[in-house]
Amino acid sequence: MRAVDLIRKKRDAVEHSREEIDFLVSGYTRGEIPDYQMAAWLMAAWIRGLNRSELASLTEAMLYSGEVLNLARIPGRKVDKHSTGGVGDKTSLIIAPIVAAGGLTVPMISGRGLGHTGGTLDKLESIPGFNVNLSLQEFYAVLRECGMGLIGQTAEIAPADKKIYALRDATSTVENVALICASIMSKKLAEGIDALVLDVKTGSGAFMKREEDSALLAELMVETGQRMGKKVVALITDMNQPLGRMAGHSNEVAECIDVLNGGGPVDLLALSIELSAWMFFLGDRTKSVDDGRLLAESMISSGHAKEKFKQGIRLQGGDERVVDAPELLPQARSRAEVSSPSSGFVTAINCEQLGTVLATLGGGREKKEDTIDHAVGLEFHKRIGDRVEKGQPLATIHYNSGAKLTEARSVIAASYEIGRTAPSGKPPLIHRILGV
Amino acid sequence: MRAVDLIRKKRDAVEHSREEIDFLVSGYTRGEIPDYQMAAWLMAAWIRGLNRSELASLTEAMLYSGEVLNLARIPGRKVDKHSTGGVGDKTSLIIAPIVAAGGLTVPMISGRGLGHTGGTLDKLESIPGFNVNLSLQEFYAVLRECGMGLIGQTAEIAPADKKIYALRDATSTVENVALICASIMSKKLAEGIDALVLDVKTGSGAFMKREEDSALLAELMVETGQRMGKKVVALITDMNQPLGRMAGHSNEVAECIDVLNGGGPVDLLALSIELSAWMFFLGDRTKSVDDGRLLAESMISSGHAKEKFKQGIRLQGGDERVVDAPELLPQARSRAEVSSPSSGFVTAINCEQLGTVLATLGGGREKKEDTIDHAVGLEFHKRIGDRVEKGQPLATIHYNSGAKLTEARSVIAASYEIGRTAPSGKPPLIHRILGV
Repeated sequence: MRAVDLIRKKRDAVEHSREEIDFLVSGYTRGEIPDYQMAAWLMAAWIRGLNRSELASLTEAMLYSGEVLNLARIPGRKVDKHSTGGVGDKTSLIIAPIVAAGGLTVPMISGRGLGHTGGTLDKLESIPGFNVNLSLQEFYAVLRECGMGLIGQTAEIAPADKKIYALRDATSTVENVALICASIMSKKLAEGIDALVLDVKTGSGAFMKREEDSALLAELMVETGQRMGKKVVALITDMNQPLGRMAGHSNEVAECIDVLNGGGPVDLLALSIELSAWMFFLGDRTKSVDDGRLLAESMISSGHAKEKFKQGIRLQGGDERVVDAPELLPQARSRAEVSSPSSGFVTAINCEQLGTVLATLGGGREKKEDTIDHAVGLEFHKRIGDRVEKGQPLATIHYNSGAKLTEARSVIAASYEIGRTAPSGKPPLIHRILGV
Repeated sequence: MRAVDLIRKKRDAVEHSREEIDFLVSGYTRGEIPDYQMAAWLMAAWIRGLNRSELASLTEAMLYSGEVLNLARIPGRKVDKHSTGGVGDKTSLIIAPIVAAGGLTVPMISGRGLGHTGGTLDKLESIPGFNVNLSLQEFYAVLRECGMGLIGQTAEIAPADKKIYALRDATSTVENVALICASIMSKKLAEGIDALVLDVKTGSGAFMKREEDSALLAELMVETGQRMGKKVVALITDMNQPLGRMAGHSNEVAECIDVLNGGGPVDLLALSIELSAWMFFLGDRTKSVDDGRLLAESMISSGHAKEKFKQGIRLQGGDERVVDAPELLPQARSRAEVSSPSSGFVTAINCEQLGTVLATLGGGREKKEDTIDHAVGLEFHKRIGDRVEKGQPLATIHYNSGAKLTEARSVIAASYEIGRTAPSGKPPLIHRILGV
């Protein structure tokens, strides 16, 4: 078998066999197939597409390019949640403590922010001392002790995905449902979990702007996971505006602590409860999603989830005092308000554009190697449908350097559409649920 | 400007500006854009296509990636011929002496064989001592002295094409009319010529099997050349069977010498005269193509073309005695006949497959670095429409090693279709002429 022939096949829209996909993925991972051949194949696959059978082969080849975690010696069901990413999307830090406090094990392997979206690992690292780079043995020990662990992708987990993703990023072959599905599912299935709840974002701040694209991705991921014997559901949830009121790192952690303390914004709380409820149900902890919802709420009201979060932070080397004193998190030195240029109603928000402001302020990455400022962030005061008067604040910028403040202000102002009349409806929090 | 954004554009079938194509070609040639990004762009361009304006930009960017020969100090018109390649296609060695003897200058920069086709440089190197690697200064001196020069692509000529072609070869992005057109025309226009005759092959032994594909390539090349102020015509000529009776290296040179001596196969002679006639006409040497034909014929009958070939060989370090004594060319040690498995008429020939046999015998390359045996070759006894009896020879194999003789025999036998009745017509030598 030769890579050049497989590239030709996909170029000509011919279906690959399982063996052919194995050859490509394992050859590339071992460095036998050069970047330029994989890049040509990825572009051909991007344009021609991969069918269900090729997608299953690709996911499995990537999954078995590395280790699959063996959590058999850790008692109980293992469940995880994965989000496709958005602005202010911080539910992992709320859900992991709720579900672990409720008796399941959550072995969560997360990513870093890239482009306009934030990443769980970056948020966690705003907690002083928090170590996301545990070895697998340390990860097992943490999971065994407190039922939750939050780490980054290790070299052992799906190395093919790590290498292919870097290449896709440099060759404009990222936004393809099959390639996205294989990337996500190969990593998640490597966690050795029993069940998975997918939060597939849709709208102006999501990678998939149109609901039908989000639904296709959700469907492919559910099918791929179920084919591998896992319980999987996907919730298609709204990303036409930021989730909660905060975007950034330390201020998102602070907002999560608010929720664990029984406060916080309604949308963030509601989505966290919903996702936790599905995890309880799929993990056989409750007989129904309704029961799961009640259990999730009780984990917050009882303070168990908050205590679990403290324990998790402590076991991963972080300063658990932040949970009672969020002011210990890095704080930006200055604040600036962005006021509305006119009076009316917020009719739409360019949420992706809002997300890019964080990078402008130093809180996001252009390249993977970039270091980030955990203290900077954005606070949002208006949601779609809200009434706003001219001069009233739309958002508050938390910043350390004023260098790009003018740019940040104008991008934020331009991200809100203010109309004379209220929009006919507000976007629903959950658009639909697949895989039930 | 960023390569990743230009890849995305072509992926999404958006037209490139001239500046964007310049950025890609010059960045890649200088090594600032890595192979993997160029590979992704090439695949996107292969699938999405390039329009006329993009093709013109690409050709010019590749042309000006290196030097354009300055032949101003060499008197008279400079004309060249280029063929897209086939099996037994050896007209360059006949045409260059005819046209140079007729008073025009032929600065011919040729290539090596790859895949199933032969290359002019390889054929020339079967002449003992012949040096195709002249410096540009040596090339100018040879051209000035005898009006013809036959060399390989130097580092100065279209370096972008050299680098891009190697990448296309490894990424299955060769067979695309726009990319082929830019590759050929950037090199040919770098020769500093006034006029160009293109021999675009069509049929089972050509890169373009279908006449409409050959015609599209011809049309694009003619348009690109004319846009750059050159006189260009394209003859679409037949490659449904080998040209002449010989394929290989030294045996093709010997067949060319036959033609220059007034003999040789009819099809090879006719095509050589026709192409030479167009070169005389486009180079303003004759008032019509008909006059060009007469001039070409007289260059053979007078012996001028043969003497010119000797002079050219001598000036490039080769042993000119081969022209009077072809047995001085390398000879294969053994011969084997392939006989017809049945009686009937030759109705079709898989000419590309026949071409691959040469590589099997050691006379072709799988990879660019491979060395080749100039002595091995094939001699064809039957053409489409010919009557053949069971057991009569279809072809004779000239070989040095018997290792792959059985394979060669069976591939050759399988390349001839023998039918009970004669085919309704024979393929015409020249299908059509474009650009007049």
